[in-house]
Amino acid sequence: MKSYLTHLECTACGLIHDASELHTVCTACAKVLYPRYDLASVARVLSPWDLAPREQNMWRYFEVLPVLDATNVATLGEGGTPLMRANQLGESLGCTDLYIKDEGLNPTASFKARGMAAAVSKAKELGVTKMMVPSAGNAAGAMAAYAARAGLEAHLFMPKSTPQSNILESGIAGAEVELVDGHIGDAGRIARERAVTTPMFDMSTMKEPYRVEGKKTLGYEIAESLGWTLPDVIVYPTGGGTGLLGMWKAFAEMEEMGWLPNSNRPRMIAVQAEGCAPVVKAFLEGADHCEPWENAQTVAAGLRVPGPYADYLILQCLRESGGTALTVTDDEALACVREIAVAEGIFACPEGAATLAALKKLLADGTIDKDERIVLLNTGSGLKYLDLFSG
Amino acid sequence: MKSYLTHLECTACGLIHDASELHTVCTACAKVLYPRYDLASVARVLSPWDLAPREQNMWRYFEVLPVLDATNVATLGEGGTPLMRANQLGESLGCTDLYIKDEGLNPTASFKARGMAAAVSKAKELGVTKMMVPSAGNAAGAMAAYAARAGLEAHLFMPKSTPQSNILESGIAGAEVELVDGHIGDAGRIARERAVTTPMFDMSTMKEPYRVEGKKTLGYEIAESLGWTLPDVIVYPTGGGTGLLGMWKAFAEMEEMGWLPNSNRPRMIAVQAEGCAPVVKAFLEGADHCEPWENAQTVAAGLRVPGPYADYLILQCLRESGGTALTVTDDEALACVREIAVAEGIFACPEGAATLAALKKLLADGTIDKDERIVLLNTGSGLKYLDLFSG
Repeated sequence: MKSYLTHLECTACGLIHDASELHTVCTACAKVLYPRYDLASVARVLSPWDLAPREQNMWRYFEVLPVLDATNVATLGEGGTPLMRANQLGESLGCTDLYIKDEGLNPTASFKARGMAAAVSKAKELGVTKMMVPSAGNAAGAMAAYAARAGLEAHLFMPKSTPQSNILESGIAGAEVELVDGHIGDAGRIARERAVTTPMFDMSTMKEPYRVEGKKTLGYEIAESLGWTLPDVIVYPTGGGTGLLGMWKAFAEMEEMGWLPNSNRPRMIAVQAEGCAPVVKAFLEGADHCEPWENAQTVAAGLRVPGPYADYLILQCLRESGGTALTVTDDEALACVREIAVAEGIFACPEGAATLAALKKLLADGTIDKDERIVLLNTGSGLKYLDLFSG
Repeated sequence: MKSYLTHLECTACGLIHDASELHTVCTACAKVLYPRYDLASVARVLSPWDLAPREQNMWRYFEVLPVLDATNVATLGEGGTPLMRANQLGESLGCTDLYIKDEGLNPTASFKARGMAAAVSKAKELGVTKMMVPSAGNAAGAMAAYAARAGLEAHLFMPKSTPQSNILESGIAGAEVELVDGHIGDAGRIARERAVTTPMFDMSTMKEPYRVEGKKTLGYEIAESLGWTLPDVIVYPTGGGTGLLGMWKAFAEMEEMGWLPNSNRPRMIAVQAEGCAPVVKAFLEGADHCEPWENAQTVAAGLRVPGPYADYLILQCLRESGGTALTVTDDEALACVREIAVAEGIFACPEGAATLAALKKLLADGTIDKDERIVLLNTGSGLKYLDLFSG
């Protein structure tokens, strides 16, 4: 297996960057860089059906992943999570073709493992030894784990309100942890201050080019699980939006390689918390950027992102796909944690359960039809949020 | 795919039981029943290399699993967990060929998912609607999840000292939970009392014939990950011993089907906690049964099993394999949780980490050589034991 990575391209101004060098954001306009591949060559050497015998983790898509030398891959078995029919839940909603993609089965029990596996591996390949990241929770735990696996140093900056599970798992893996007053934006500010005195590579989502590459394997997997077709709708809990963008990027790549029999893309639906909904506000106002959300508050730590860096890409994706954006309350999300667990035996995180709360609204207002093929993305395990359920 | 299940056989007296009926233990001698298969026919229709394109969960071994009708399978994506080289840990120990099988990536974050997926699915196939189980923790959480997935009723009996994570995940999935003074033996007594007034099928490990079938897929997976060869040594944290016995059964089945190029079996090593070590005591005394352990105490909830029902089979397996049994202290196990996390990024449960503590002793006394191929079995995620690491 060989990676067909060719270069990095700015998603805003199109400027090309050298992928053999360490980059963060566009050197001209400071917007998000996307890795690009020689997809025509991949299409020649690989058919999607060739993938079948490969190991079912995200590295089965090695040709369209950015690590050149497989010995740099730091893996804990991320990806290859089940896309499960949710028939009992579907029955109670009247839906005939409902699925849950359960990312709780990843290492560190969340989908952040995908992004960090790709980004930490690539950082190692490019000579990084010290990394830092601000995180609302699961990204920190994932970076700590992959840094340990890769033999690199991790410095983590988290709000004090971060779930205890994330703080503990990070410390146990040997990462340096600093707890910060405020939200993930404040954690980012402090992290960048610290990085001035101690040089550390910034692994903030969408500010380095490779976390999205790990996340995009979600899109490849969903297509592969459905026999190289795509669902009608994907409902996605949107914090930084990297998973949403990753899937959207994957669909474009697969289409370019001729891996999909038609060009029907899913409608992408962003779910946010009522207490932190910058994307929903911008989407409804027809804006192409988000205003930073004041006093962000939600128990769904992964949704506590007041100003996603890739806001313009998220809004583009929602509109291009014919999707939408909506909020749910914390109470609605938490009730749906129980509903999913009782109906299907899946203990979802509140972010993941928020997609069910959103689905109910979208079925009620006719945005989604009951016979459509619907995928709810559960981004992680409820086991990391036990404090919300005790007592 | 078709199951080649033929009958149930008593592991002690050999009496045959009809596998189309619901059974618990041997009707003649009350010992453990094992499902048997028409392995000669499986060998004719299936080569191990045919498995490659199948989905990487435990149901890929459908021919040697007990569910006849695939529509009865209640799956959450169990199995297919990574067998990872632990090079950094190996380096610090001087070991050149060290692996960790990480069962934390299962649904409900523990290897109990395998056994419960098989047993709940088979119980459903045989018409069971209400099940009960006494559990020291993770088995309860797994049964709650699979019962929900299968649409069956679960009644769980756990010691009050059970980790909070297990109590919460069970309740969230809608199971009836009763907390009991004492250990898992006491929970079993209460469960059997309750089952007199409310008929409920007893899913206690090794007292029903199918949990071991789910666990045996560990053995198939280890062989498949190693190109259909077996390691020299498997170090296994032993509570009820179902995983150990399951692997041993799998090795025998694979050998009978000609799936292994030679008959070299691993030495099986049982690790127990110093505060609850009935198997170690019996092994060292040359006994063929265990005496119930008084005042069982360990933070490793899965090892808090004072009288494993399949004691005679565990002891047979250790002896036949040329293995051994030894104890570690809770402090040694907890220190190894940190050591594994820092070296490899895997947040193991204390039971899993106990295998590393044991390995160190076995390397020191020459029981294991540094160049042997060693597999440590991490039975679940440390995320379910956060109370041990906070503060």
